[in-house]
Amino acid sequence: MKIEDIFGTVLRRYRKLCNLSQEDLALQSNLDRTYISLLETGKRSPTINTLFAICETLNIKPSDLIKEVENEYKKQNNS
Amino acid sequence: MKIEDIFGTVLRRYRKLCNLSQEDLALQSNLDRTYISLLETGKRSPTINTLFAICETLNIKPSDLIKEVENEYKKQNNS
Repeated sequence: MKIEDIFGTVLRRYRKLCNLSQEDLALQSNLDRTYISLLETGKRSPTINTLFAICETLNIKPSDLIKEVENEYKKQNNS
Repeated sequence: MKIEDIFGTVLRRYRKLCNLSQEDLALQSNLDRTYISLLETGKRSPTINTLFAICETLNIKPSDLIKEVENEYKKQNNS
């Protein structure tokens, strides 16, 4: 699994925890709805600017989201 | 100060701590030397894939580097 796939999975989980639709997240982060969809399906890799914008909307620290990606990535590559 | 400026400053600091030239970092991370220069001067914002590649070379956790960017950003925007 690639980093962008893992990021997409983690992003979708957090968005749902916040009870936000892709459209809500997009609007509040000043991004496009289709771009959120591309991120969640691992078809795009976000820049750190996008990461910070999304995390502000989801009210989590960018470093905490990255830590989850990191842990998942480590797990995948050790197995 | 924008996120990419702060990232650039933090990246340069870590690279120097590792005693690597921009060229060393680029080669070991499979990136272009000029791209490292653009990142360090805040002219580009890295994707999380680039972030992970660079952090592997610098032997630090991506989440730790992002945490530094986050703290610096908070400091700047509170002052």
